[in-house]
Amino acid sequence: MKKLRVIPLGGLGEIGKNMTLFEYNNQGIIIDAGIMFPEGDHLGIDYIIPDMGYLKDNLDRLTIHGIFVTHGHEDHTGAINHVLDVVEAPIFGTALTCGLLKNKITEAGRKANINVINAGDVVRRGAFELEAFHVCHSIPDCVGFGIRTPVGLVVFTGDFKFDHTPVDGWPTDFATISRMGNDGVLALFADSTNADRPGWTLSESVIDAGFDRVFKKADGRIIVATFASLISRIQQVANTAMRYDRKMAIAGYSMNENIRMARELEYLDFPAKLIVPLDKALSMPPEEVVLMVTGSQGEPSAVLSRLANGRHKTIDIEDGDTVILSAHPIPGNEEMVQRTINKLIQKGANVVYDAIEQVHVSGHASQEEMKLMINLVKPKYFVPVHGELRHLHSHAKLAQELGVPASHCSVVENGTILEFTQHSMEVVDRYPGGYVFVDGSGVGDIGPAVMRDREILANEGFLVIFALVDKQGNLLRDPRIISRGFVYLKGSDEIFSIIKDVVKRSLKKSSNGRRSTGVEEAVGRRVYQETKRRPMVFAHIEQTP
Amino acid sequence: MKKLRVIPLGGLGEIGKNMTLFEYNNQGIIIDAGIMFPEGDHLGIDYIIPDMGYLKDNLDRLTIHGIFVTHGHEDHTGAINHVLDVVEAPIFGTALTCGLLKNKITEAGRKANINVINAGDVVRRGAFELEAFHVCHSIPDCVGFGIRTPVGLVVFTGDFKFDHTPVDGWPTDFATISRMGNDGVLALFADSTNADRPGWTLSESVIDAGFDRVFKKADGRIIVATFASLISRIQQVANTAMRYDRKMAIAGYSMNENIRMARELEYLDFPAKLIVPLDKALSMPPEEVVLMVTGSQGEPSAVLSRLANGRHKTIDIEDGDTVILSAHPIPGNEEMVQRTINKLIQKGANVVYDAIEQVHVSGHASQEEMKLMINLVKPKYFVPVHGELRHLHSHAKLAQELGVPASHCSVVENGTILEFTQHSMEVVDRYPGGYVFVDGSGVGDIGPAVMRDREILANEGFLVIFALVDKQGNLLRDPRIISRGFVYLKGSDEIFSIIKDVVKRSLKKSSNGRRSTGVEEAVGRRVYQETKRRPMVFAHIEQTP
Repeated sequence: MKKLRVIPLGGLGEIGKNMTLFEYNNQGIIIDAGIMFPEGDHLGIDYIIPDMGYLKDNLDRLTIHGIFVTHGHEDHTGAINHVLDVVEAPIFGTALTCGLLKNKITEAGRKANINVINAGDVVRRGAFELEAFHVCHSIPDCVGFGIRTPVGLVVFTGDFKFDHTPVDGWPTDFATISRMGNDGVLALFADSTNADRPGWTLSESVIDAGFDRVFKKADGRIIVATFASLISRIQQVANTAMRYDRKMAIAGYSMNENIRMARELEYLDFPAKLIVPLDKALSMPPEEVVLMVTGSQGEPSAVLSRLANGRHKTIDIEDGDTVILSAHPIPGNEEMVQRTINKLIQKGANVVYDAIEQVHVSGHASQEEMKLMINLVKPKYFVPVHGELRHLHSHAKLAQELGVPASHCSVVENGTILEFTQHSMEVVDRYPGGYVFVDGSGVGDIGPAVMRDREILANEGFLVIFALVDKQGNLLRDPRIISRGFVYLKGSDEIFSIIKDVVKRSLKKSSNGRRSTGVEEAVGRRVYQETKRRPMVFAHIEQTP
Repeated sequence: MKKLRVIPLGGLGEIGKNMTLFEYNNQGIIIDAGIMFPEGDHLGIDYIIPDMGYLKDNLDRLTIHGIFVTHGHEDHTGAINHVLDVVEAPIFGTALTCGLLKNKITEAGRKANINVINAGDVVRRGAFELEAFHVCHSIPDCVGFGIRTPVGLVVFTGDFKFDHTPVDGWPTDFATISRMGNDGVLALFADSTNADRPGWTLSESVIDAGFDRVFKKADGRIIVATFASLISRIQQVANTAMRYDRKMAIAGYSMNENIRMARELEYLDFPAKLIVPLDKALSMPPEEVVLMVTGSQGEPSAVLSRLANGRHKTIDIEDGDTVILSAHPIPGNEEMVQRTINKLIQKGANVVYDAIEQVHVSGHASQEEMKLMINLVKPKYFVPVHGELRHLHSHAKLAQELGVPASHCSVVENGTILEFTQHSMEVVDRYPGGYVFVDGSGVGDIGPAVMRDREILANEGFLVIFALVDKQGNLLRDPRIISRGFVYLKGSDEIFSIIKDVVKRSLKKSSNGRRSTGVEEAVGRRVYQETKRRPMVFAHIEQTP
């Protein structure tokens, strides 16, 4: 009997988020091709991509008929070039999504077969027929997919919320989702991000009132920081700016690029004269200006953090500036964001963030919306995805409260192979692997060993000792010590002369083959005694020819 | 005219929290002697202490008559030995606070003059008369101080909340605070931690109901993680355990120590037979056991995180275990806590945390409580302390809503010198300095330079090259390369042989004095071309004698 296989192909922390493979009878499609962002202890890692080991290992039998992308965020698009390295399949997405994908693909100097689809379109590829339906999220023109397969219809929500009054006036497509529910759905794969949040996520439109209150009170310049991809938020800032007779200027490369493209594709709607160049804005009366900037996550190289640190080329924070942080810190960024807020206040700005005014809402469904999705779709089987394990568990509990039997819910991890027939869902296996670190041009060469070394170096630094000895092992010159991250070099003569003594004594005692290990051990011990620190210690003992 | 000086002596992020100096006519007292915890980019730092530069620089004229400690938390007690290094003054605190201080002082092998006081006691030291008043917080027996000075009465709240139904039955002392308010208060220094939280912090007693719901549903073992200092929470677990006929066992050094001391001092009240040794608990039927463990902040070496990683000596997480996280992540710890939760779920535990059940409340006052404190005290001048700059600003705004003139509110930073007369508050100056890093046995030797090096090493690693050359600069042997944190050493032969070639070519081209710099630059450039990484590169070129 033929079965449908579904495999979340990778991800870190969140499950089934960045890339998912559907296969039936050796025909496959991929949903999304995203990256993950490194966590605090992924030292020096630029970004993380899904592990495509399963794909690579099965490409001799498996044909990938299409890469379908739900929306334009990095965690769903950012790995596209890495995926194209493995499979050269045509890409499908809405206009904005394809615009963002095209940029990435062109920048990498490659070509791809990119196909713009609209919500409502049906695309048949291999054994699969995909119907895109519109969902609301925090970037325009998102879709979920109804995926008709030989064993039944699978609904894949992608990131979503049910916003009744979205900024673009286009709510999530209840009708199509309900129709699918009535047709009979084998399985629902649904976004679990906010599974711990009771209630219903507030509509983006509540932010209008929040912005209004802030703009009304501000008598100086207003600076708004948000995600460059949060196009609807930019529209809301533009609308408020027009109401309060302010001109808008843009700082930050990605913010500029996204606004340019979104205006071209008509996702943003405001008159050209609203926008003034940054340098002009800086010479206008402050009460006539709004600056849109990047860096709402406290990223050190983005505009907001440079403003906070007084390191922006042209803009300085001044007394009377109002800074709006229209974003919520992504887990792991809290410390950076808080520090940025404190520094902006220190420079005299009035900082408005979500704890003190309604200037941000989540882009994901809360519990009542999750329940609505499950009840609209009425799936036979339920697979919570897009969230950490704890969110998946909470989401599965919700489904069970709605009557989905526990045996029909699968909480799986990345790499797990799920198999469906018309009458069954089964966890078959877990494919080893998970995610792959990208550091510089290296993909996957950094693993746990290097990461461990980086952690020790980060906390303790290193000491390298070089000694030149004659054939009898007598030191010919004062040993050379190279060290960083261990002690402040100026004013540490004492510890270094102690180390040199230890080297001399150790060399006298050690036999030929044990010389460098002997020195390393003796120095490490003594350094710990003196400083209670454990730098990495290396010795190279060179014997004259 | 004589003036009262108040100086928040140090702190990082939070202001006026860990240590505050009061001085009048060369007579001084200190409130609290706490440490701060390192933030994410304080690589390798163990903890941070206040900068005592002002104290040291003024000790020839200034006599410190006492160190008064508000409560037993680390951020108010942890720097006691560092403070005693600078001033040998008598210490005053309630019994529990002194118990905790005594442990620290004894462990450091020193002696101190420690004086137990009770809430309500009045102590006269130098120019100051301190009256301790009871406040609720998240450790028992906390006090704030009314400080009578020659220019007027200053109220210093310490960490506080107004809990009407605290677990120990002892609410914050409204009567004394009101009396001080009626006597006339020159200045109020008040806790700002939750200045962004509207409403009133929930009472500790709501947790009883939360625990009850979790205990009722659990049919396996229950494991509760909380702060070892959260004595009232431990009492609540004990009460619930007795109601559900479970025995309690304790894992973790600090949890054991604190419970032992709190029982001795009668801050904990339960029969001895409730407690069973850990090894006995592990052999009892799971439904008869509660384990109290440390590690609620995801600290890698504490019990909870060892359970999550399967690295505890004796305890393994089993299917059916219920883990209660009775704590909220401190900013910066979110990622670690979330990871711990996910790993516990992965091991089969049902994990209950504050998003899904009422198992924790804050120890600090929310906005309505802050307003109540201000209205009870009716201070002439208001100084928000204990919080980040943004919290201090929000707290000052609250005070202004209650009618304290903006000119009577001072939002200051650590090191700022405030001067009071009977009729004035003035910001005089800011003393340079701030905080001091402690790493191993080194206090203050690690500064920005070492921190920067550690950051580069963390992200990029290092490469050290040794080459032995003759008098003409010809290589005598293959150069030796030592590297960590840059690439995975196995399988990186290619990049290392490229580097060796670069070394050889560079040595041929370089003049004598420029040899090592030449090699470093050439290798750095080539390594970046090949890998897009920038490890620290050092070269040592040794010429044979």
